[in-house]
Amino acid sequence: MSPLKNDNFLRALMRQPTDYTPVWMMRQAGRYLPEYRASRKTAGSFLQLCKNPGFATEVTMQPLDRYPLLDAAILFSDILTVPDAMGVGLYFAEGEGPKFERTLREEADIQKLAVPDMADLQYVFDAVAQIRKTLDGRVPLIGFSGSPWTLATCMVEGQGGTDFLTIKKMAYARPDLLHRILDITAQTVTQYLNAQISAGAQAVMIFDSWGGALAHDAYGEFSLNYMQKIVAGLIKSNDGRTVPSIVFTKGGALWLEAQADIGADALGLDWAVDIGQARQRVGHRVALQGNLDPAILLSTPAAIEQQVAKVLASYGQGHGHVFNLGHGITQWTPPENAAAMLEAVRLHSQAYHQ
Amino acid sequence: MSPLKNDNFLRALMRQPTDYTPVWMMRQAGRYLPEYRASRKTAGSFLQLCKNPGFATEVTMQPLDRYPLLDAAILFSDILTVPDAMGVGLYFAEGEGPKFERTLREEADIQKLAVPDMADLQYVFDAVAQIRKTLDGRVPLIGFSGSPWTLATCMVEGQGGTDFLTIKKMAYARPDLLHRILDITAQTVTQYLNAQISAGAQAVMIFDSWGGALAHDAYGEFSLNYMQKIVAGLIKSNDGRTVPSIVFTKGGALWLEAQADIGADALGLDWAVDIGQARQRVGHRVALQGNLDPAILLSTPAAIEQQVAKVLASYGQGHGHVFNLGHGITQWTPPENAAAMLEAVRLHSQAYHQ
Repeated sequence: MSPLKNDNFLRALMRQPTDYTPVWMMRQAGRYLPEYRASRKTAGSFLQLCKNPGFATEVTMQPLDRYPLLDAAILFSDILTVPDAMGVGLYFAEGEGPKFERTLREEADIQKLAVPDMADLQYVFDAVAQIRKTLDGRVPLIGFSGSPWTLATCMVEGQGGTDFLTIKKMAYARPDLLHRILDITAQTVTQYLNAQISAGAQAVMIFDSWGGALAHDAYGEFSLNYMQKIVAGLIKSNDGRTVPSIVFTKGGALWLEAQADIGADALGLDWAVDIGQARQRVGHRVALQGNLDPAILLSTPAAIEQQVAKVLASYGQGHGHVFNLGHGITQWTPPENAAAMLEAVRLHSQAYHQ
Repeated sequence: MSPLKNDNFLRALMRQPTDYTPVWMMRQAGRYLPEYRASRKTAGSFLQLCKNPGFATEVTMQPLDRYPLLDAAILFSDILTVPDAMGVGLYFAEGEGPKFERTLREEADIQKLAVPDMADLQYVFDAVAQIRKTLDGRVPLIGFSGSPWTLATCMVEGQGGTDFLTIKKMAYARPDLLHRILDITAQTVTQYLNAQISAGAQAVMIFDSWGGALAHDAYGEFSLNYMQKIVAGLIKSNDGRTVPSIVFTKGGALWLEAQADIGADALGLDWAVDIGQARQRVGHRVALQGNLDPAILLSTPAAIEQQVAKVLASYGQGHGHVFNLGHGITQWTPPENAAAMLEAVRLHSQAYHQ
């Protein structure tokens, strides 16, 4: 592997000095880019983009080729690859979101649940290896997974179930069943992220997209505990380096103190929290990643610059900040507005790293 | 009007002593009750239940007749009555949610927006008066409105628009237009709540259902500021009493300190925050209302009792707590589970009021 030419992202995750605040964008390879839409059309479906390492590499590289100011690449994939391998039968109907052939609700099905063979996810690890090779040391590559709670929600609720009532009913009426699902899913995610690391991922992120739906005490029991187990089980890279980990609970900024204690190197923040206040709350335990509201990218370059400057000023002097959106970039974002954000981050962040 | 026989709810809102923790349930007159479903069938539609004071009274009374342990009634209505009066053309298609004939996005439309004639909402005030008369002093009656930000979201996004991208784009690109909408809506809500008070509402609640979607600084600018104006403009009741106000931003527990400063008597809490920690954060400035996850009511009476006891213990000794769910009761709740919650509140709360 080529040596890394830009390690600012990894350095910031480890709270080491950088000359500016590194930046990437959640869902940076996505529908807002015309080149992505063209690739998806060629591939035939979203799932084909994920399952074919050549396509995954192509779309992963697109934002990097368009925006030279990006400091990290992220594997193009989907959190639903794991439920798919665990047997729910993922498919994407044309023009619709993900669907599952089965849900995981019956006790007999839950007793049969097992960690899948990682060979069923080989296409993901092949994509990681091919992207690393294509990156050629330009920026680091982030691997990722959904959190156990988030993946369990997908499997229990099924497609379209976003009121969380089925899984929460299980949490309160049959916590033993839910803990079994979460335990097996956490083992699966640990193996999955470690296989991504072995294939070349230089940082890993756990997306706890639905953790924010939980009650405060249920969050610790059903989501955070299992992310802690995963973080504790992460391996080093093939060349012996520690692979930094980022944990991101969307809607979870009330619980940052607890998140900062699970051993992850960085926490993702959505836009609900002031990043300067978040920094005060977590102290020196973790780096912070975030947290511009992606809706701001629908406004004007002048407004974007002003809002970027506010986030940077709120974080303030010193290292340990990775600039990002507070959630994935929306498909309606004009690509030039993403460029305006990246330029504003580079322009305004240097003063905070002197 | 008959004298109030049970003023525990009003006393708790004013942080005065009570013998137990009073309780009501958001959306307590709702689809989980077979008698409600029967009334709705007779009325023909949800909107008819709202617009006909006789039906509104009938369904408001249903949970009180079923559950003698309820300490408050809440006007049966919908936050969309106000956007309807402001001209978006509300209607409910059979078997679907609310729809609007028009959205409020164009500058010319926004310039024409005006406070509606309260006579267009007379059916609401008639319902308040009829419910007060029917209650005959049994428990206090709560009036309510959506917050300006929440109502503006409905008007700008239109039906089904819950990604907030249109209104947030306006917030960042044309804040002057959004502030005009919010200002007129705040004036409207103030008049609307005051007319409910004149008709007999004994407490008022502002539902900021979508405030939690805002970024931390945008929340103050676009939601909280306008709720503050409304609270400052509330009148006293016809008999000269102060009418306590409750402000509830769903998903807004990060910002409780700011909410506690706007002059409301109580804050609503969803289940994301530990109520004991919330109490520490707001000190003696406000009472707190909440905050059991309504999904818990789908489990078992034993689990419900345990979770109710946890909320009460977390709030701890002393007054100023109104027990409630953290959001509306779901339609899938077995009515006997709601009874189990109410009984657990009465049973376990008395020890904290000695």
